[in-house]
Parts: sequence; structure tokens; C-alpha cells
Amino acid sequence: MAAKRVKETYRAAGVDIDAADKLVKTIRKLARTTFGPEVLGDLGFFGGLFELKGYQEPVLVSSADGVGTKLKIACALNQHDTIGIDLANHCINDIFTCGAKPLFFQDYIAMAKLVPSILESIVQGMTSALSEVGCALIGGETAEMPGLYPQGEYDLVGFIVGVVEKSKLINGNSITAGDGIIGLPSSGLHTNGYSLVRKIFNIDEDPSCLNRIYPELGRNLGEELLEPHRCYYPILKSMLPMIKGIAHITGGGIPGNLPRILPERLAAKIEKKSWYIPPIFSLIQKEGNVDEVEMYLVFNMGIGMIVVCSPSDVDELTKKIPEAKIIGEVVEQKGTQRIAML
Amino acid sequence: MAAKRVKETYRAAGVDIDAADKLVKTIRKLARTTFGPEVLGDLGFFGGLFELKGYQEPVLVSSADGVGTKLKIACALNQHDTIGIDLANHCINDIFTCGAKPLFFQDYIAMAKLVPSILESIVQGMTSALSEVGCALIGGETAEMPGLYPQGEYDLVGFIVGVVEKSKLINGNSITAGDGIIGLPSSGLHTNGYSLVRKIFNIDEDPSCLNRIYPELGRNLGEELLEPHRCYYPILKSMLPMIKGIAHITGGGIPGNLPRILPERLAAKIEKKSWYIPPIFSLIQKEGNVDEVEMYLVFNMGIGMIVVCSPSDVDELTKKIPEAKIIGEVVEQKGTQRIAML
Repeated sequence: MAAKRVKETYRAAGVDIDAADKLVKTIRKLARTTFGPEVLGDLGFFGGLFELKGYQEPVLVSSADGVGTKLKIACALNQHDTIGIDLANHCINDIFTCGAKPLFFQDYIAMAKLVPSILESIVQGMTSALSEVGCALIGGETAEMPGLYPQGEYDLVGFIVGVVEKSKLINGNSITAGDGIIGLPSSGLHTNGYSLVRKIFNIDEDPSCLNRIYPELGRNLGEELLEPHRCYYPILKSMLPMIKGIAHITGGGIPGNLPRILPERLAAKIEKKSWYIPPIFSLIQKEGNVDEVEMYLVFNMGIGMIVVCSPSDVDELTKKIPEAKIIGEVVEQKGTQRIAML
Repeated sequence: MAAKRVKETYRAAGVDIDAADKLVKTIRKLARTTFGPEVLGDLGFFGGLFELKGYQEPVLVSSADGVGTKLKIACALNQHDTIGIDLANHCINDIFTCGAKPLFFQDYIAMAKLVPSILESIVQGMTSALSEVGCALIGGETAEMPGLYPQGEYDLVGFIVGVVEKSKLINGNSITAGDGIIGLPSSGLHTNGYSLVRKIFNIDEDPSCLNRIYPELGRNLGEELLEPHRCYYPILKSMLPMIKGIAHITGGGIPGNLPRILPERLAAKIEKKSWYIPPIFSLIQKEGNVDEVEMYLVFNMGIGMIVVCSPSDVDELTKKIPEAKIIGEVVEQKGTQRIAML
């Protein structure tokens, strides 16, 4: 558990034990804010314990994810209170594509040298996002690996487990031609495309551009790039009975992710003009002179989550979620293309 | 899933798509060797799906772990076929301390630049170890993060979920004074103490010592240091009805791990002379002029797993597992010390 592991790392590194004890207490306190009655045993055990209750035919849905080089932006700005939100929400969205309710989470944080204030900020962000959806942080590992990570940088990985009744599993199998494709707005880049953005703005060489205010963004570039990955679970969970398929728009963009949930011989027709593309994407495209096709393959372009439903449910879904936009339609596949971006 | 993720990373990096397809097929094939009928859905979905069947009051036991800087030894020797075994077995042992049967696993591999042969070797090791215990590799993430990881190096994280009936959960609560403490031999350093070993042998500066044959080891130092972390699940699982507590001897050694399973006001008395200490530990101690107390705090010293059982079961346990040694006894705690290494 977060608590145990810090102490051990500290001991091995010969770090001030009082400071270690204080950090351990803080992390335990943060983790406990995420606990429901299903969490058994105390922190500090070898495994995290979660009692699964109330399911007839439970299917466990799990995912492992990182946040890519968004980390580098957090490190350049020395601002670590939102990167844990990104990690948690990315994982929650991933398993929600199967209709799963998030149950518990474990994290892995690796640094060259443990910095208590950074660790505390990361865990704070993580637990605040997990608490929002009732997911427990029941364990994790902190690794101090000098020589593998550059000083002041770190890697961050999240593992999540959720559950769904087998009869309510969402896998896209019932999708048919004519179904509606509905997009939900992203809050920004989420956690994809940061390697390209760093290159375009030359951030690694000269991070000062992060402090530059762009009028079209209404804030500085750093704030825009650190905007946390949005969680769609709260807004979508009550819509599940109407939903046939869910695609989380991450690396690969809409063309890389939407076809993953479509049954064979079906394709998606997407109207690119049907939603608002936030200014950050136009700014990136302009600054980097990026081809439009590549933009849609690397970035979410303003759509963070896509749901597919039968045509008769489209109205109700978009009425209940006013920000949701009808962005396309499922069609019979012609030729080899699984998606047409019109 | 392993397969999906590689393709995306490849696409983003503009790598040869034929080579990518081949790697994807290889990894899918390896992952599928670990699948039982509980694994639902195909690879390539956003979440890994596992159907939980046949439990009355299931408690899910999970753990996230890395293999520390044992990675650096694998990289120095460019030998990556056993590090995945280390990762899997470390995780399996961790959740087994609660009596859990391993169900499924996810991995995270991060590199500066994806190297297909390395990735394949790691996954090969991982799946071979997971297959041994019937645990499914149902997902994972591969991250390419140039600028965070040094060229040719990587980090490797494992996440495991197992299950145990609530009534059969092992948590040490029933341990009482007079109980026997039984140790099982480790296969070497397992995955702890590598930072100290690297420093003592100056491995980062001059890895040639890894090829040096030490007569007391009967092989070269590199082979000894890469010896995979042993898995105790197969040998111990049928003994569970006799076992009151299990401690996995990882970072912190016996003094750091055994007390974690002891109820309050109980302590452990350990007879250091009761087991065979493999020559690698004496070699490290001699070469590094390491204090004996520190040796026991950093290394497992030849004991990889400890089980506690009532005195009446000691004979049967040690008869059924001939390599198991009685190494101590649970006693009433006197003063503040939770463990006495005699």
C-alpha cells in the first residue's frame, strides 16, 4: 500500500524518518477517503482486499494505463496536483466502455529520488478523482530508481478494476446500420498527443512558451495543456440501458478507436463539422503545420467519448445530455474502410 | 491489450507496419496461451474482461509491483527472457499471502523507443510464468516515451487480481504465541536489493563483472543475479488449510515483512542459523563490507516466503514440503521489538 511502500523506500534511502512518517500518514489519510465498506483489512498488507457483493454473474473489467508525456508538462511547470486526476479518469473511462462500474484502483509511481511534496500532490489528485466515482485506492507501489529516471521526473501508471453484470456488458455486438453516433466534448487534449505537442512548441528545449498567453485559448499554454482528462462515468452511467457501444477517444483518435467497437461489416460515417473543435487543436495544427488527417489520428479533436445508440434513443440521449452532439451514423461497410470522416 | 497497444505505438512512431503486424500476432498468441474460459471478449478491447464464477463471498485481492533495478541487470546483459517471470511471480506471491488464487494480470512496459525483440522476450517470460499458475494476461499498456527513459532501458510494472473466499482469507489474525514459523528457500535475490548490489559491484560503470565466474556461485555473477524470482503458489496452495499467516520476503527483508502479518502484542523469534544462506549473500556482504543487520534488512537472505502455522501442523507441513525449514516461533511481545533475529 501507498503508505507501507513509502516507508520502505525511505528506509532504504536513509531519508529522515520523521518526514517519512508524516508522508505515510498523509497518504494513508488520502487513500482512506476513497474507502467504502467493501474494502477489507488495513493499509499496509501485501495485497489490497475488496469484497465483491451483490452481483449475479459478475464480469470484472480491468485496464492498465499511463498518462504518456503529459507528465513532462507537469514536471516542466512543477505542478503535480492534476496529473493524478488524468490517470484516474483515463482508467475509469476505459473500463466504462464495457459498462463497468469502477471498484478499485492501484497506482505505480517511479522516480529517481522520492520527493514527498510531489508524491503527495499526485496522490491528492488521484484520490479526489477516485472519490468522485466511488472507486477505492487500495494499494500501489512507489519505486525509487536512480539512474533510470531523470532527476525531478517520474512515471505514473494506474490499474483499475470494475464490474458489470454479464447480461449488461456493453461490447458493441448489438450495433446495427442506422444507429446514431453521439459525441461528448473533451476537456482538451486529455492524455494523448503530447509527444507531438512538445515537439511542435519545442517545450523540452524551452519550456518558457508554457507561460505564454494565447488569446484564442484565453489562458496560457501550460494551463491549457494540463487541463485534466475528463471523466464521463457520472454523466453517462444512468444512460447505460440506452447505449449499445462506447468508445474512449484516446491515442489513434476517432478513426483509431471508434471502429474497435463496431461489429464486422459495419462502418462509421462521421460529420466533422457537427461539433465544436476547441481552439487548442487549431493552434497546434497551425503552429506545427500538421496535416488534417494526422490531427484526427493523434488528437481527440474535441470529442472525448463516443456512444452508439439506436436511432429511436438519439433524441432522449441528446436531450438528457445537452452537451452531447450527434456526430454521425453507423452504416454498412463498403470496401475496406471502417470509418469515413466527412 | 498488448496487441492493440503495440500497433498504435508503432503507427505513431511511423515504424514498419509489417514488422508491427508480426509482433502483434506474436504477442496475441502468447497472451492467448494464458486464457481460460473465464476470459471474455477478444483482445483489442478497451478493458480486459474476466468472468468471476463459483464463489460465495468473493474477496478480490490485488497488487501492483515492479521489479526494481533488477531491470538494469537485464539491460546490461541484454537478456530479457526472465524479467517477465520475475514480475509475474512477485505479484503472484504478494496476493498469495492472503490465500488468493491468481485470476488475471495486466502489465505496463515503458521504453524510450520500442524494441520488438525486447518486448517479445519480456512478454514470453511473463506468459510462461502466468500459465504455470493459470493466470490470464488480459491486458496491458506499452508506452513509448523518448526523453523519459534512457535508450535501451525500460520500466516494467505488473498488476494482478486474485480471489479468495472471505471465510478462507488469510490475514494472520488467528496467529498466537507458540505458533511455528516456517521458511521456504528463495532462488536468489528475487527482486530486492539490486540498487545496493549494483553499487557494490560498480555494475553501472563497468558491467564486465557480470561475466566473471565466482567459484562459490558456480556460475557467473550475471546469471546468479538474473535468477528468476521463485513462485510459491504451486507448492503452498494445497497447504492453505494449515496456514495462519504468510509473509512474502521482499524489500525490508524478514524484519521488515514478517511483523506485518503478526497480530498486536505478538513478536517473532527467528533463528538465523536454522537455514542455509546461499553463497551470493556472503559474497555481497564480503565485497561490500555490509553490516550483517543491513544484510537482513535489504535481502531475503535465502528465505523467500514465510508461513506461520500452529505447532501441531509444523510436522506435517515440513514433511510435505521437504525443503521447508522451521526457522522460528511466535512469542509474546516484550518491549517495542516485533522481531528478534537470534
